[in-house]
Amino acid sequence: MIMQMLLQTSKATVGVAGASGYAGGELVRLLHGHPRLAVGAATRDAGELAGCDVCVLALPHGASAPIAGELADAGGRVVDMSRDLRGIWPYGLPELHRERLAGESAIANPGCYATAALLALAPLVENGLVCGTVVVDGKSGVSGAGKAPAEATHLCVAGEGITAYAPVGHPHQAEIERELSGLAGRPVTVAFTPHLAPFSRGLLVTAYAQLAAPLDQAAATTLYRDRYAGELFVALVEQPRTQRVRGANVCQIAVHVDQKRQMAIVVAALDNLVKGAAGQALQNVNLMLGLDEHCGLPVEGLWP
Amino acid sequence: MIMQMLLQTSKATVGVAGASGYAGGELVRLLHGHPRLAVGAATRDAGELAGCDVCVLALPHGASAPIAGELADAGGRVVDMSRDLRGIWPYGLPELHRERLAGESAIANPGCYATAALLALAPLVENGLVCGTVVVDGKSGVSGAGKAPAEATHLCVAGEGITAYAPVGHPHQAEIERELSGLAGRPVTVAFTPHLAPFSRGLLVTAYAQLAAPLDQAAATTLYRDRYAGELFVALVEQPRTQRVRGANVCQIAVHVDQKRQMAIVVAALDNLVKGAAGQALQNVNLMLGLDEHCGLPVEGLWP
Amino acid sequence: MIMQMLLQTSKATVGVAGASGYAGGELVRLLHGHPRLAVGAATRDAGELAGCDVCVLALPHGASAPIAGELADAGGRVVDMSRDLRGIWPYGLPELHRERLAGESAIANPGCYATAALLALAPLVENGLVCGTVVVDGKSGVSGAGKAPAEATHLCVAGEGITAYAPVGHPHQAEIERELSGLAGRPVTVAFTPHLAPFSRGLLVTAYAQLAAPLDQAAATTLYRDRYAGELFVALVEQPRTQRVRGANVCQIAVHVDQKRQMAIVVAALDNLVKGAAGQALQNVNLMLGLDEHCGLPVEGLWP
Amino acid sequence: MIMQMLLQTSKATVGVAGASGYAGGELVRLLHGHPRLAVGAATRDAGELAGCDVCVLALPHGASAPIAGELADAGGRVVDMSRDLRGIWPYGLPELHRERLAGESAIANPGCYATAALLALAPLVENGLVCGTVVVDGKSGVSGAGKAPAEATHLCVAGEGITAYAPVGHPHQAEIERELSGLAGRPVTVAFTPHLAPFSRGLLVTAYAQLAAPLDQAAATTLYRDRYAGELFVALVEQPRTQRVRGANVCQIAVHVDQKRQMAIVVAALDNLVKGAAGQALQNVNLMLGLDEHCGLPVEGLWP
Repeated sequence: MIMQMLLQTSKATVGVAGASGYAGGELVRLLHGHPRLAVGAATRDAGELAGCDVCVLALPHGASAPIAGELADAGGRVVDMSRDLRGIWPYGLPELHRERLAGESAIANPGCYATAALLALAPLVENGLVCGTVVVDGKSGVSGAGKAPAEATHLCVAGEGITAYAPVGHPHQAEIERELSGLAGRPVTVAFTPHLAPFSRGLLVTAYAQLAAPLDQAAATTLYRDRYAGELFVALVEQPRTQRVRGANVCQIAVHVDQKRQMAIVVAALDNLVKGAAGQALQNVNLMLGLDEHCGLPVEGLWP
Repeated sequence: MIMQMLLQTSKATVGVAGASGYAGGELVRLLHGHPRLAVGAATRDAGELAGCDVCVLALPHGASAPIAGELADAGGRVVDMSRDLRGIWPYGLPELHRERLAGESAIANPGCYATAALLALAPLVENGLVCGTVVVDGKSGVSGAGKAPAEATHLCVAGEGITAYAPVGHPHQAEIERELSGLAGRPVTVAFTPHLAPFSRGLLVTAYAQLAAPLDQAAATTLYRDRYAGELFVALVEQPRTQRVRGANVCQIAVHVDQKRQMAIVVAALDNLVKGAAGQALQNVNLMLGLDEHCGLPVEGLWP
Repeated sequence: MIMQMLLQTSKATVGVAGASGYAGGELVRLLHGHPRLAVGAATRDAGELAGCDVCVLALPHGASAPIAGELADAGGRVVDMSRDLRGIWPYGLPELHRERLAGESAIANPGCYATAALLALAPLVENGLVCGTVVVDGKSGVSGAGKAPAEATHLCVAGEGITAYAPVGHPHQAEIERELSGLAGRPVTVAFTPHLAPFSRGLLVTAYAQLAAPLDQAAATTLYRDRYAGELFVALVEQPRTQRVRGANVCQIAVHVDQKRQMAIVVAALDNLVKGAAGQALQNVNLMLGLDEHCGLPVEGLWP
Repeated sequence: MIMQMLLQTSKATVGVAGASGYAGGELVRLLHGHPRLAVGAATRDAGELAGCDVCVLALPHGASAPIAGELADAGGRVVDMSRDLRGIWPYGLPELHRERLAGESAIANPGCYATAALLALAPLVENGLVCGTVVVDGKSGVSGAGKAPAEATHLCVAGEGITAYAPVGHPHQAEIERELSGLAGRPVTVAFTPHLAPFSRGLLVTAYAQLAAPLDQAAATTLYRDRYAGELFVALVEQPRTQRVRGANVCQIAVHVDQKRQMAIVVAALDNLVKGAAGQALQNVNLMLGLDEHCGLPVEGLWP
């Protein structure tokens, strides 16, 4: 028998606003399995959160900022999952900004597409290897569109086929550009088109970057291995597949180099509700509270 | 903060044979989250299992019996997930036979369809409320057919539609009849037709039983509530839905009475790989080892 | 070269009310390929239909009856696709009532589930071979629920799994009972539970009938072959599959006998928008106008 | 009544080799509805084709070239659907090369991805508006992978999620580059990554092209309208959607200009088995025989 000793003394409480939505509901589910955190309150809106050790807001874009600000002003710890405070509060992508996040009391959780695109491109961009406009082609399941019934999410419309939407000007485009520019130390432009794919969970991003300097496949592979060595939530794999990260707080990545065209093609897959939303929010809560960043976060998804 | 004290002294080891299949792989995944059990060995076939505290066999029907017998003869604890030993070894459906299973060293894990059908019908059958041939109409996702590529599981064949197979003589028919007869104390006949539905995980059974005595909806609801009171893994709900038990060790059940036709219609949904296979096997392992039966088994599924 | 002579002199016009819905839209599509019929008008509601040779109403249940009545009173030819006039007007299931429909000027088009269930059971019921309550278990794609967005048709709710609804009292239950009783010449009772399956088009019915007299598989097969000999829109196949009738005006049927339990299990598959709605309506229009009943109706579906 | 006179004197015969595959089967289905063509022979391989007016080969890549060559050498008319003769025989994309195809006796039918990509990009490339490497991101349903069972096409692997494959060096990449270079009159480079999406039929391409000269949205829209004016099989729509072209010989296209980044983003959707294979082959057969190019080809798909 394997011997093990564990002395667990307490659970911090997390208040979840917007628990009736998909991302909020996922957060509650993950908290139920978390050994050091408990749900302090789970509410449709933001009432009743007082007294929780941390608040996580899974509220609609626009509705979140005032509530988040109020909670933060009152001295509370807040992770905001909307896009309202991205670019204002510290950007909660731990694999890129871990040192800035530890002990923070107000964190803006990244968008799902942005998480995948940034993890896919960071190793290249941080090393000045990208030039020209980067193309980011995104494919997401329907849960990304939220639970409100609409023509676009009707199974007869969204099922059994695929469509593009918002080819120009999707809010994640600006988010990706801003964050990549920060990593690059110079303006980076991005063309981003999201697609609605006929499944419930999961998101895949295919990024195409013109290389600023010669790079072969072996060097690219090494670059990614080194960059993500020790990162439990980034998995370098042969063929990223949304089906393999269902329910896991993991981003699968593969980098390919087309040497003839001096182009890097990076594919990244994640669960939009976990590493793309609630799981990453918990990563940030863990960091805020000084817990092990990985605590309570699954690295294996349901398969099949 | 919520205070909690936990002293966890050891993990028993489980050897999984057939870990490369869907059910075996699911068992390994569940074990990774189990606080009192660890994977002792995970093998394609049955070698290397020696030394584990319990062995669980997720092997093909026919291949399992000799290995299971050998392990049991050698004094090991064994849960067999094939159909080979059903009817011979104690039948591992804890909600129906818990008292017989505690401390057992050899358990035959029920089939996925049989689990749903038996939990759906037990309250009626145990009380002598059923007459005539019971109709059990089953719908399962494709993971129930295993991972070997075949024409029937090709996405273009199995996707975007539904088909019936084996309308007469499916092995689960005999299993359901045998177990229902045991509960009834008299022979019960069953017509059972399984269907292949276009999703990966999940199984739903709709059972139609002619009532042997008058029963109204209120009495039926009470009967089921009383029968399953305290059962953590049986949930009486308005509308069972395979989508709500994905990854959970739960069988959702709803009973309906058509009074005009004196017919009970019982719907049951479960995840064929969890409550229908690996999760139930772990329930049995917990019982074998004297652990809390519910230990390490999720009651919430991924949603959506 | 194959020689062929065709002299086509005219097209009768069909007015379609409710052309913006799924069934109405399908009717317009089929009319575009019809060699003897043309769309005279296609409207959201029932205005502007005057002057058409025939009107087909694809309007919501309840809204249809008054309009249908008015059109019929004014001497027009009408096929009504709602359930409003079933049981009142001649029932437009040509394979069962062809002689009563030819030349009719007002026809009630059958429901999709009823079409499949009746074609599945007619050979048995017409011959007095059924006793007890017949079980009809139905599985339909989401287009059967109409195009209005709702929680139940959201891809995240309806996709990747299956659920039962209305286990008692669905309107098709009464329709099936009434029509089967007519065929039997005595009251026949039916238990009917529909299920919402995760695809767009297609419907499968599994009917379980207790046999009133001994019948073996060979006799049952012969019974069905004889009954449907010459029926272009009924195909006796090994394994009915909704995927094989997508877009076709065909009902696939297989009959199985479980001799030990003296039970017949009949499986029927059709496209709910074609043989279950618009295609059958066109069959009725053809009969009304004295055209070849099969004219303009596809017998091959899209595959895959 | 609408009056119409039609004198149809003969049907030419088409021999289909590879009729047991998805594309070959689709060709047979389309021929059954064709007013001027009939199936002369439908064979698994290429025997028995002698005597047909035209042969269409739906054979595996590699197997096709020798048979096609033999048939052509013997004076027969041949459309080859494999990639074997692309770049050698006239390229059968009528919207781009109609004048070269009329009366031809040997035509290489384009690949499905190439058809979508070329129709998407032709208006820009023909006018010298593109610079840099063009990114073509493709998403296809599973029928594109053929009917042979394989791990990659198992519903549990391919369903309910998305994956990229062959990010570098897919054969369609070279085909698209060659044909775009021909249209441009200079070498054009393309990065092409196909994705396997969880549906049966349909293909969507999202093309990202750096603009060589300023272009605004209005000018781009006009450019596409003018280029495809009168093209029955190209539909400029707001939002291309594979679900809207199921069974139709139509490519839906939308052009978007991101003026800030001087990037054109063009989305194109088609049915990979129709406009991407069998339908386009029939277009070529029609041209070969001097028939109306549109004869027998559906422009409306099944919806939903």
